Amino acid sequence: MILVVTPNPAVDVTYRVAEQRIGATQRVLEVQRRPGGKGLNVGRVLAATGVPTHAVLPLGGDGGYWIAHALDDLGLAHTDVAVRGETRTTVTVVDDLAHPTMFGEPGPVLSPDEWDRVSAAVETLLDGDATGAPPAAALVVSGSLPRDTDPAVVARWITAARRRGALSVADCSGTALLAAASAGATVCKPNREELLEATGADDERSGALRLLRLGATVVVVSRGSDGIAAHTAEHVLEVPAVPGVSGNPTGAGDAATAGLVSVLVDVLVGAGLPAPDGSVPAPDDTTLLRVLRSAAAHGAAAVLQPVAGAVDPADVHRFLSTPPAPAHDRTRTPA
Amino acid sequence: MILVVTPNPAVDVTYRVAEQRIGATQRVLEVQRRPGGKGLNVGRVLAATGVPTHAVLPLGGDGGYWIAHALDDLGLAHTDVAVRGETRTTVTVVDDLAHPTMFGEPGPVLSPDEWDRVSAAVETLLDGDATGAPPAAALVVSGSLPRDTDPAVVARWITAARRRGALSVADCSGTALLAAASAGATVCKPNREELLEATGADDERSGALRLLRLGATVVVVSRGSDGIAAHTAEHVLEVPAVPGVSGNPTGAGDAATAGLVSVLVDVLVGAGLPAPDGSVPAPDDTTLLRVLRSAAAHGAAAVLQPVAGAVDPADVHRFLSTPPAPAHDRTRTPA
Repeated sequence: MILVVTPNPAVDVTYRVAEQRIGATQRVLEVQRRPGGKGLNVGRVLAATGVPTHAVLPLGGDGGYWIAHALDDLGLAHTDVAVRGETRTTVTVVDDLAHPTMFGEPGPVLSPDEWDRVSAAVETLLDGDATGAPPAAALVVSGSLPRDTDPAVVARWITAARRRGALSVADCSGTALLAAASAGATVCKPNREELLEATGADDERSGALRLLRLGATVVVVSRGSDGIAAHTAEHVLEVPAVPGVSGNPTGAGDAATAGLVSVLVDVLVGAGLPAPDGSVPAPDDTTLLRVLRSAAAHGAAAVLQPVAGAVDPADVHRFLSTPPAPAHDRTRTPA
Repeated sequence: MILVVTPNPAVDVTYRVAEQRIGATQRVLEVQRRPGGKGLNVGRVLAATGVPTHAVLPLGGDGGYWIAHALDDLGLAHTDVAVRGETRTTVTVVDDLAHPTMFGEPGPVLSPDEWDRVSAAVETLLDGDATGAPPAAALVVSGSLPRDTDPAVVARWITAARRRGALSVADCSGTALLAAASAGATVCKPNREELLEATGADDERSGALRLLRLGATVVVVSRGSDGIAAHTAEHVLEVPAVPGVSGNPTGAGDAATAGLVSVLVDVLVGAGLPAPDGSVPAPDDTTLLRVLRSAAAHGAAAVLQPVAGAVDPADVHRFLSTPPAPAHDRTRTPA
């Protein structure tokens, strides 16, 4: 089972209008409401491709209530930590003429006690439970932290996974990304902008090396239509994006994370994870190339869907079956 | 007691952003959620000025649930008719640079059975009830109808009020406004644009005469900063807007409706409404001038408030105490 933590979930509302205009009253032609937040997108793509998944998330107020019921309807297993604040809503306005406009509410501030309860839920699910649920093979932490959150909470979750011999993948930004690397995340997976912003580096390789030096085993950087790369201290492995795919890029990075973690779990659990000493082995280059190809195929399949958090498994399969373009191995000397 | 029907209530959400920009991701700096729809604005202003008020409204889904609780918190008495559809949300985006942008969801479609239950609630509350609640002295119908609604529902409510000797005020648009006039509403109160649009007339006086000929007793037209006018078959009485007031015009027309109906009830109930034959007497010109001044004072007080559906009673009192500018009496020959 893969455990996915969404620290700052959202009710994602999409409004379709005829034409976006500032200062006007606009009739909404179509409304969609979906449970959102990057972690929930990852969890839904995993579940859609048949990977046992469990979501952990703080929920509060009417928005939280709505998300809990929507996850039930989607059949995604979830453990909700009830919080006092109101779960946020995002509103995205779309037309056929301009780029979408997104309004993001700030979300609730959680108390230290509330974070302790989230961490306790993560630790319980990592252990498996008395009902016979198996221990989690991997932990994914994905998405922004609510305002005023100490990034040490992310380090606590990563450390809890590492101590139990579970893989960990962090798709975070800012100080949360640095905290995940320092705690020894198996994979840090920012996009390029997030990597440069969090590390203060001038180029991708320098930024990735900073996260590796902090303690990350691998740094995977998603580059949108420019493909995806895995950085280790020795190598940069690159896989191009699936060519000729166009559509809705929202959530493609989250689908890529789902594709990444599912292959990583397959390979490492197949190889006997955790190791006898309880450690998580570093993936070798063959594994990393499989991981990158899976991530690229899942990302491309997500682009074909009109909404975030969805893939058609047949699309994933088709993109994985396409003879891959040659991967680049840009060996560099560690700085 | 004044009974206020809101046929299409809404969760009114206001997002403050630094600068409205199409195609951008914008952080919402401040979120406000309020129960909305014009009738609820009228009801809240009446309640804020100490007038016994009861709201009737169809509510469905999470938005409806939220509104019911918010009205409880506000202390506004309400009778909810549960409907299958989802009560709509409106999102208004504001900054300090441009006009607000409003996104209005279409709202639910109600079945004929659901409308019958709304009408039954209106009739019960007009009658007073077994718990000792008095019959309603006036009925206000305010705001848009949901999609695909037969405007005959508005006529049914107005007729129910008239048969019981209760005043009726309709602040509607389109065919609902025509239906209210035909059913013999005491006051039809559109703004100028709504009047011209509903009647197809080229000027305000012609439009008002059409509603009077259909059956309305008085037509009151709100003109924003150009004041407010009462049309009878013989006269046009005009009162200018309170000078030197600037702020938030949203909901000022609804506050004006509250000011209008509260004075009308005072005068006509003071004069022994309903008449011995059960009819509602037409207000005389002295009453109409008091009504217009009250409407203008309430509208101006609403402009001083940052949100719709609110007035400070001290502001209303201050504006009513200001020596009024001379009212214009534009006597015309009925066309």
